[in-house]
Amino acid sequence: MSLLNRFLGNPQNSATIAKERLQVIIAHERNSQSSKADFLPALQRELISVISKYVQVNLDDITVSLEKHGNYEVLEVNIVLPESTVGR
Amino acid sequence: MSLLNRFLGNPQNSATIAKERLQVIIAHERNSQSSKADFLPALQRELISVISKYVQVNLDDITVSLEKHGNYEVLEVNIVLPESTVGR
Repeated sequence: MSLLNRFLGNPQNSATIAKERLQVIIAHERNSQSSKADFLPALQRELISVISKYVQVNLDDITVSLEKHGNYEVLEVNIVLPESTVGR
Repeated sequence: MSLLNRFLGNPQNSATIAKERLQVIIAHERNSQSSKADFLPALQRELISVISKYVQVNLDDITVSLEKHGNYEVLEVNIVLPESTVGR
């Protein structure tokens, strides 16, 4: 399809065309009475470990944020995948 | 952060407010030349396995969807958590 895209007006530059990304968002909706421990940071480490079994992940290419929005705790992990390592 | 909008601005009704939920969204942005195998279904099974180490998960309380949006493959897993089993 890459040649076709040249005709279909889908300009991609060489800096971005090769990148693939994986974005993982985990939202934990807690009810107001919840006093339970927050397990998202520990879960995050295991998730990255699991993901790295499927794709080669460089730690430098991972950005993580953990935010609270009302009743939600939201863990967001963004991973830029190296070329030719997906689906190994 | 557009995926985050799926969580926020999602009003709760009285029937659902007592439940805790865990929502996992994995978006794989593939480039146009990618012909690599799709690993999201396998990743999904492992993720649920990892999550079940932290919270008690009933398979009946899990809903999974896998959709394609342009260059994105989006895996969405919704888990309703039983009461008093989070953070065990």
